[in-house]
Amino acid sequence: MVDILHRVGIRAARADVYESLATTKGVAAWWTTDTTGTSEVGSSFDTTFWHGQTGELLGGFRLRVEELDPARRVRWLVEDGPAEWIGTHIDFDLTDEDGWTVVMFRHLGWSDPVPFMHHCSTKWAVFLMSLKHLHEDGAGEPSPDDVTISNWH
Amino acid sequence: MVDILHRVGIRAARADVYESLATTKGVAAWWTTDTTGTSEVGSSFDTTFWHGQTGELLGGFRLRVEELDPARRVRWLVEDGPAEWIGTHIDFDLTDEDGWTVVMFRHLGWSDPVPFMHHCSTKWAVFLMSLKHLHEDGAGEPSPDDVTISNWH
Repeated sequence: MVDILHRVGIRAARADVYESLATTKGVAAWWTTDTTGTSEVGSSFDTTFWHGQTGELLGGFRLRVEELDPARRVRWLVEDGPAEWIGTHIDFDLTDEDGWTVVMFRHLGWSDPVPFMHHCSTKWAVFLMSLKHLHEDGAGEPSPDDVTISNWH
Repeated sequence: MVDILHRVGIRAARADVYESLATTKGVAAWWTTDTTGTSEVGSSFDTTFWHGQTGELLGGFRLRVEELDPARRVRWLVEDGPAEWIGTHIDFDLTDEDGWTVVMFRHLGWSDPVPFMHHCSTKWAVFLMSLKHLHEDGAGEPSPDDVTISNWH
C-alpha cells in the first residue's frame, strides 16, 4: 500500500476550513463545482469533474463520509470512481499552528505507485492550494476551472 | 521507506525541460536562484533557500549528480541538508506524450512519513508547477520568490 501525503497551512479559522471539507457546498468551492449528495456520516456524495475548455466529462468519485469531527477531522471512503481509487481513504486533519490552520492530508491505501497515482498526488497539491486560495484570497479554483497540470488535465 | 511521487506535463521540448534539470542555471530558474556548484555526474551542487519577505535563511540541500541521460533522465543523491533528506534520491524521468513533455518525479527513500515529508510533497508539487510555468509562461517561481504553502514556508 502507498499513500499520497500533503501539508498546507491556511490563514483562516479552523472552523471555516472544516466547513469547506465537511459540507458539499464547501467542497464545491475548491474541488469541483459539481458536488452533489449528502455529507453526513454514513451518507455519500458525488464529485464530478469536467474539462473547462472542451466541456468533456473527465470522471468522478463517490465518497462515503466516515468521520466528521467538527473543526478537527474529515474522513472519506471512496466507494466509486477509477478502479485505483475504490476502497482508498481520504483524510483531512486540522490543527492550529502559529495562527495558521494546518491541513494534514492523506489519501491512503493505493495498491501500487502507478503513473495515475503520481498524477493524483500533484493534482491533490494543486486542489489543496485551491482550498488555501479560497480562504485567503476569496476564491478557489474548483473544476471545471481548475489548474491544468498535464495532458491528463 | 516511503516516496514522494508527482507527474506534470509541460508544453515544451523534452530537451529544453532536461536543460532545466541538468544544469545549475536551469535549476536556478525554477527551484532556487541560489544554486551553486557543478552539475556533472559525480560532482555536487548546492541549493539554498531564503525567505522572500524576511530574508531569513531557510535551509538548503547538497545534491550529488548520479545520472544525466540527455533529454531522458536526471538523478540526484542528497548528500547534505535536513536529516530526513540525507541519503534519499531524487529522480526526474522525461517522456513525450501527445505533444507534452511528461515529467515523472520521484523523491525516493524517506525513512518515515513525518509531517516534514507531507510538507515537502506539497512543496515539490508547487516547484514542479514552477518548472512548468518557466517553460510555458516564460518565468518560474524559484526561491526566494517561491509560492508560500504554510507556516513552514
